[in-house]
Amino acid sequence: MIVYCVEVFVKKGFESDFIEATGANRSGTRAEKGNLRFDLSRSADDPGLFFLYEVYSDEDAVKNHKETSHYLKWRDTVEPWMEKKRYGRMFSPVFPDGAAGW
Amino acid sequence: MIVYCVEVFVKKGFESDFIEATGANRSGTRAEKGNLRFDLSRSADDPGLFFLYEVYSDEDAVKNHKETSHYLKWRDTVEPWMEKKRYGRMFSPVFPDGAAGW
Repeated sequence: MIVYCVEVFVKKGFESDFIEATGANRSGTRAEKGNLRFDLSRSADDPGLFFLYEVYSDEDAVKNHKETSHYLKWRDTVEPWMEKKRYGRMFSPVFPDGAAGW
Repeated sequence: MIVYCVEVFVKKGFESDFIEATGANRSGTRAEKGNLRFDLSRSADDPGLFFLYEVYSDEDAVKNHKETSHYLKWRDTVEPWMEKKRYGRMFSPVFPDGAAGW
């Protein structure tokens, strides 16, 4: 299982567009066999900072996700709205332990 | 709804103790009426870096959590195992939208 955390920095004025595009990507991603979660949240202090919390069954599921049309469309659509490069990190889950509870 | 993300930096040699203490805190927290998630994960690159992803129904639920005996015990127990001060940030969920799906 892999937890993928991404911080995204959106230019002022493009926040609603970003949310809409990310909602479309989320719908496609949640339908992937290897995806367990796809949460989007927004900083309480900085309205341009968004946080993605994605959980996948394994590395192959992450690889597969990055080849899907919904991911590639999202990546190219949001690119011009970025204030700076997004910051992604991989984590291994400790709790919940196992496939349940995600 | 509030998403509370915390990065915790654990001194080398105390990782297992930290996981055990956090598991006990998690059990108590998941039983709180206002808690919706409590995930712990560990960095793929830095074994001393842990990531907490906690979701609460509202600010009162966060306040209540910080007054519970399991939280206070965890806070005091893990304090000497910290490499540096933990880094917590508050987010507002965008997706999932509403109380379901957490």
